[in-house]
Amino acid sequence: MADMDAHDANRDDPARAALTGLTPAEKVSLTTGEKFWHTKGIARAGIPSVMLTDGPHGLRKQNEDGEGLGFGDSVAATCFPPAVALGCSFDPDLIEQVGRAVADEALAESVGVVLGPGINIKRSPLCGRNFEYYSEDPYVSGVAGAALVRGLQSRGVGASLKHFAANNQEHDRLRVSADIDPRPLREIYLRAFEHVVTTEQPWTVMASYNRINGVYSTENAWLLDAVLRREWGFEGLVVSDWFAVHDRVAGIAAGLDLEMPSSGGVGEERVLRALAEGHLDDDVVEEAAARVVTLARRAAANADPTATADHEAHHALARDVAARCVVLLKNDDSLLPLDRDASVAVIGEFARTPRYQGAGSSRIHPTRLDNALDEMRALAGEERVRFAPGFTLDREAVDDGAAATLLADAVDVAAAADVAVVFLGLPADAESEGFDRTHLHLPDAQLTVLDAVFAANHRTVVVLSHGGVVELTPFGSAVPAIVEAWLLGQAGGGAIADVLYGDVAPCGRLTETIPRRLEDTPAYLDFPGDSAHVRYGEGLFVGYRWYDAREQDVEYPFGHGLTYTTFDYTDLEVTVTETGLDVGVTVSNTGPRAGRAVVQVYTGLARSAVARPPRELKGFAGVELEAGQSRRVTVEVSRKDLAYWDIRSGGWVVESGTYTVEVGESSRDIRDRAQVQVIGEEPIVPATEESTLGELMHIPEVREVVLKFAEQAIGADAAGHLEQDRGTLEMLGSLPVGRLPAIPGIGFDAAAVRQLIELANRSRSGAS
Amino acid sequence: MADMDAHDANRDDPARAALTGLTPAEKVSLTTGEKFWHTKGIARAGIPSVMLTDGPHGLRKQNEDGEGLGFGDSVAATCFPPAVALGCSFDPDLIEQVGRAVADEALAESVGVVLGPGINIKRSPLCGRNFEYYSEDPYVSGVAGAALVRGLQSRGVGASLKHFAANNQEHDRLRVSADIDPRPLREIYLRAFEHVVTTEQPWTVMASYNRINGVYSTENAWLLDAVLRREWGFEGLVVSDWFAVHDRVAGIAAGLDLEMPSSGGVGEERVLRALAEGHLDDDVVEEAAARVVTLARRAAANADPTATADHEAHHALARDVAARCVVLLKNDDSLLPLDRDASVAVIGEFARTPRYQGAGSSRIHPTRLDNALDEMRALAGEERVRFAPGFTLDREAVDDGAAATLLADAVDVAAAADVAVVFLGLPADAESEGFDRTHLHLPDAQLTVLDAVFAANHRTVVVLSHGGVVELTPFGSAVPAIVEAWLLGQAGGGAIADVLYGDVAPCGRLTETIPRRLEDTPAYLDFPGDSAHVRYGEGLFVGYRWYDAREQDVEYPFGHGLTYTTFDYTDLEVTVTETGLDVGVTVSNTGPRAGRAVVQVYTGLARSAVARPPRELKGFAGVELEAGQSRRVTVEVSRKDLAYWDIRSGGWVVESGTYTVEVGESSRDIRDRAQVQVIGEEPIVPATEESTLGELMHIPEVREVVLKFAEQAIGADAAGHLEQDRGTLEMLGSLPVGRLPAIPGIGFDAAAVRQLIELANRSRSGAS
Repeated sequence: MADMDAHDANRDDPARAALTGLTPAEKVSLTTGEKFWHTKGIARAGIPSVMLTDGPHGLRKQNEDGEGLGFGDSVAATCFPPAVALGCSFDPDLIEQVGRAVADEALAESVGVVLGPGINIKRSPLCGRNFEYYSEDPYVSGVAGAALVRGLQSRGVGASLKHFAANNQEHDRLRVSADIDPRPLREIYLRAFEHVVTTEQPWTVMASYNRINGVYSTENAWLLDAVLRREWGFEGLVVSDWFAVHDRVAGIAAGLDLEMPSSGGVGEERVLRALAEGHLDDDVVEEAAARVVTLARRAAANADPTATADHEAHHALARDVAARCVVLLKNDDSLLPLDRDASVAVIGEFARTPRYQGAGSSRIHPTRLDNALDEMRALAGEERVRFAPGFTLDREAVDDGAAATLLADAVDVAAAADVAVVFLGLPADAESEGFDRTHLHLPDAQLTVLDAVFAANHRTVVVLSHGGVVELTPFGSAVPAIVEAWLLGQAGGGAIADVLYGDVAPCGRLTETIPRRLEDTPAYLDFPGDSAHVRYGEGLFVGYRWYDAREQDVEYPFGHGLTYTTFDYTDLEVTVTETGLDVGVTVSNTGPRAGRAVVQVYTGLARSAVARPPRELKGFAGVELEAGQSRRVTVEVSRKDLAYWDIRSGGWVVESGTYTVEVGESSRDIRDRAQVQVIGEEPIVPATEESTLGELMHIPEVREVVLKFAEQAIGADAAGHLEQDRGTLEMLGSLPVGRLPAIPGIGFDAAAVRQLIELANRSRSGAS
Repeated sequence: MADMDAHDANRDDPARAALTGLTPAEKVSLTTGEKFWHTKGIARAGIPSVMLTDGPHGLRKQNEDGEGLGFGDSVAATCFPPAVALGCSFDPDLIEQVGRAVADEALAESVGVVLGPGINIKRSPLCGRNFEYYSEDPYVSGVAGAALVRGLQSRGVGASLKHFAANNQEHDRLRVSADIDPRPLREIYLRAFEHVVTTEQPWTVMASYNRINGVYSTENAWLLDAVLRREWGFEGLVVSDWFAVHDRVAGIAAGLDLEMPSSGGVGEERVLRALAEGHLDDDVVEEAAARVVTLARRAAANADPTATADHEAHHALARDVAARCVVLLKNDDSLLPLDRDASVAVIGEFARTPRYQGAGSSRIHPTRLDNALDEMRALAGEERVRFAPGFTLDREAVDDGAAATLLADAVDVAAAADVAVVFLGLPADAESEGFDRTHLHLPDAQLTVLDAVFAANHRTVVVLSHGGVVELTPFGSAVPAIVEAWLLGQAGGGAIADVLYGDVAPCGRLTETIPRRLEDTPAYLDFPGDSAHVRYGEGLFVGYRWYDAREQDVEYPFGHGLTYTTFDYTDLEVTVTETGLDVGVTVSNTGPRAGRAVVQVYTGLARSAVARPPRELKGFAGVELEAGQSRRVTVEVSRKDLAYWDIRSGGWVVESGTYTVEVGESSRDIRDRAQVQVIGEEPIVPATEESTLGELMHIPEVREVVLKFAEQAIGADAAGHLEQDRGTLEMLGSLPVGRLPAIPGIGFDAAAVRQLIELANRSRSGAS
């Protein structure tokens, strides 16, 4: 209702007023871009132009000559950790801080909207753009995305929540139809969007390239209007992903307000023709244009020509943030943190030439770039840190002789040191917007170096740099310590040094499962699809939901991450409230150092009427604890998050039942669990001819009538006999009641069935 | 075309003529049953009535008072092995022989149509009716089903191919929508039906209870008319499964000729009203009625009131057949065959009280019932075969004391014997038409007995009796010999004795994978669905297609089965012919005894444009070989079977490429492989605005034009620069050409795009 009122209120809003004196062609022109990065302004009507630029882990504002295809030079900006790392912080405040910093750089560059965050679900680890996304889990994705939007918009810079929706792969992304059933679509792929839209009202939402169940996102009225605006109450503007418009007329009718970039007049011409021919309502264009006006004025109102950004401070922030994103996967015998006095062999070109972000539209031109080698030397002294590249990142340069020399040097350096730290990762051209990976392997040459180094020095730490997960099985059980450093942005080198030497305690947690093998992954058999279709065959069972349901071994589970201390969880208490669940638990730091625990709350409902994953993350809280310190932590689980999408009634339903609430350090390190009774609601599914006899007989009043009928029709003896034949009983129970009149001799005619259905509906509504 | 002619010819066929003098009500009355098991006859028009009865591994003709619900008494008939076992023979001739025998019993009972075979795919091992189906593989299902139809119909008894289609579970079967994508629907779930219909023309096809993608099979015009009649050329009658009719008017319009059983006038009334109101064409009813007349007359013409069946001979046949269905899963140290002089401990109630068929509409009242204990004693002498039941099948009778005594006796008997043969299985009430299983476990009590017996005597053979696969992991690696005896029909006891003592060499092969755990099975996460929908999320990857693609361990692979000798495969030769592939291989019996090899031919296409399982069975041949004997075996793979269903063109396409042809003893015991070049056909997919630039640039003529454009538009330098940026290149390649005019500055206007598309279509058709 609220959104309908807002809708009507638009009719006399100032944006509409600004359109009054414009020609139809002018109005239409507002709904498409001015070249690549700007909306059109009309000075005489007081309509400014707004600049939108790529992001969002920094600003990618292309230089003035960068209007066109490809990702040309852009102005220098702070490159914060991309989403793949940022999400692992499990720290919304930290993410919000990044959002504020990016917004400040945007304001300094007269940018009104930053295109992000990307909150698509990591359906397959192969997706080429996973480094731009937060998680395989919609709860984490939603919370992280909301934090970034909050940060940006708190400074008066608009966010563009993307890519709406179900854009979970790069292959054939401009055309592929993501074929998804209603429940996974709602519960997995739209849920994070719903969270961000309803909590943060992003200024814009970006419609994605792909189709959903056959309909382009950019012309999907169900998606853009019914769900986004009417159900969720979205008040902002819908912009197309760049070149995502397939049919501009269908798009604007469906609620795609702004086509980007300019289609060189093509889109406008078609819309004008449709208006002239009466295929399109004037008001549709008016509304889209008004939204563009509102956005542009909002940006203009927040613009500050004198704004500057403090790149030094932002670099320091980028280092702090990056360190909090590092996930310590393994640390046998407390090999880490490194002793500052130890002699350390740093192996691997990545220590000197960092991989710190992915390729494509989010590639930032950084203000500075630190590397781990220099930063480790700065912390521990150059003399204690020796380096050998081990391998080269220059493919052309590799010949067998050169590779052998690099390897031999690395082994020598490692053998002479107390500890070897080996930097491995994916080459920059392995992951990018625009294409997907086809395997999860690290390059063989790197693994060869690691094997040789490990043979020379078993005290080996592996530091990984990459945007999508890789298979760790080749070395995962042998090597005693593994640091997952993802892509950490321009200050990642320092962050890695901080974590390795213990200046910062690692506190990142995995937002995606690291599987054993690609073959184990949920979408393995239907990713990325073919013939312009991709079936999301795993349904709800994405990420840990799949591995847990199939009781499948993984390399590292969702939520996993060590630090330099240990935590205990005691006194779990779960209270059912009107708004959901209050989960309280006492967390104690039982180890020798300060550290940050991330209390993860999972819920499950074993006896559900519908398919359910064994556990789903529904809340988390970070807590910093000194050695020996304890704290009571409360996590609120929203009642909405307990709901499943009911396909019969087409709505969210909280099912009644005994929910299991688990508290853990990861999805597979559950420390305590409780069971609570939740009183839910019945889905609104009226009894019909398609209701089965069994379903209706769950209603006591109906059961009574049916049993009376049965005894009369076939006699008590026969009825008794039937009850012993499970097969026949189940068959009868599964009979849609509309079929009863067609079964001769049992006395149910059409009128009797109608009465039964009415009785059922009366009894259910409590109005009997 | 052929079917269209047939269609027209119907208009002056004798069946139509018989309808001439009938009232509309009489015509309509023909399209529904006379009570439970008969069609209506109209004597004055010379239209006889035909009786249809359950089957098909024997006749289930209910007694005269058995008209009604439930599965009452039926006349005695030979109970042959149900499909679960019969398929494992991999022997179409044998199955055909069973069909002939069942037909003879039908003729003796004045039955015109036997309701079977059931050829649904075993999507999940949990399906309660899997014992009535042949395989997880459509090729095996099709070949086996065709053989049974051939056998029945060669004697003048009609088959009813069922359950058409996608009826792969019992849960909510009267309503559930099997939501299946086009490729799995065509390539897995319809493929066996297509084979049987096109090769055998069954007299009738039975429309299933369920919906397919939302539409009831009984009113699915796409299924019953477009596919079954028009594509496949089906000439027979479509009958509903009993009580499967949801909307009789929609059904008859869609091609459901005969509603069964009688709906007590309900269906007729609705059809008559629809006719009167003009919602239904007279001719539709006429056609359905004519098909009923044709069927009834066909049955009448073949009826023989003097026919009798030789139950003694059929019992002997049932024993021969059953022995050939047994699958020897494991036989370490050649523990089998048993020495006739050995002292044998027979343990397990199933040895005395056999499980030999499943429950529901296929449950035969057998003419005799043998058990393995008596038959083993008959072969080896009563004194050498001691028995202990070990456990009881009577749930009420179990108390701890009684169980302990049974167990102790079993251990005593086993300890004193040379060999223990332990008969385990599923209780009769665990599997039935009407409900699905929820787990794959054998009862704990039985496993306890096995453990104790095995501890007492390691020379233990397990004999299994059940209709759906069970988990063998609790004992599979320890116990040295396992005999999979499924449900073997009334003479199974003798068959098991024959195999155990080596009078018959086992020669069955698994038609379904035995998985390690339920959690590993393809449909685990979406079987049996909920809310009246079941998504076939695993797509094409059913059975071994899944385990192979995911490289997942299984307990025993599809196609596996040992015998008492061994085989070598040499000199594989594969020739590409006009009709497919000729696969020749020399098979040698390298062991000490005669035996039957089953040469299994699998094909695969690694570099396919579409998703493909690594290997698919496309042919097999059985060959009997004396010890030391060799024979050249040729298996023809039909070209049609190499095709995939192309969703772009909506047709079967044989893709060009290098096919791998594998010959093996099972899907995981490949003995040799060859690669052959197959020249296929291009799917008929015209270039459109939705074709991507990359797709069209595969056509040399188009590529030339596009590159010229690009150089003019952005300059040769920029074009060269672009080629180094894989991300951007991939993005451009994935652009639907219809979007090009909207990209400013590259010179592709709408007219240029149209020319490009025309050029592509001309070049492809070779008409440039």
